[in-house]
Amino acid sequence: MKKVKIYVTLRESILDPQGSAVQGSLHNMGYDEVSEVRIGKFLELQIDPSERDVDTLVKEMCEKLLTNTVIEDYRYEVEEAN
Amino acid sequence: MKKVKIYVTLRESILDPQGSAVQGSLHNMGYDEVSEVRIGKFLELQIDPSERDVDTLVKEMCEKLLTNTVIEDYRYEVEEAN
Repeated sequence: MKKVKIYVTLRESILDPQGSAVQGSLHNMGYDEVSEVRIGKFLELQIDPSERDVDTLVKEMCEKLLTNTVIEDYRYEVEEAN
Repeated sequence: MKKVKIYVTLRESILDPQGSAVQGSLHNMGYDEVSEVRIGKFLELQIDPSERDVDTLVKEMCEKLLTNTVIEDYRYEVEEAN
């Protein structure tokens, strides 16, 4: 069993209104040291190894369903599940 | 300048309907190897060091605004920003 962690972030050139809103709230709360807030997604899943290669599977799933590659980037890590 | 990465996940005991929906879609698409899909948030931000300690700041921000500690866990990493 493999555990896969996928990090999905907005591409740098894309505005992040959710991040801006959070940053505004943090400033209002007195955390003026904070800047460049960007918000993405973090997915964890398990893959039961089959004849298919885990890397190929993860890339396919990311590109077909999990991310919007026009506006988002992703990276992932595969580890042995306990 | 410090770069902080914050990972927010639902506590294990909390149901994740968004994760279940994504898992259902992946199964419908033929990715039957996948299980235990959980979806969380991934935040990146920069902190301009002040007299306040970065760890204290991050924990305060997470507990006051960024996470709902009743249903979510968080962990974070601090690195030197380029």
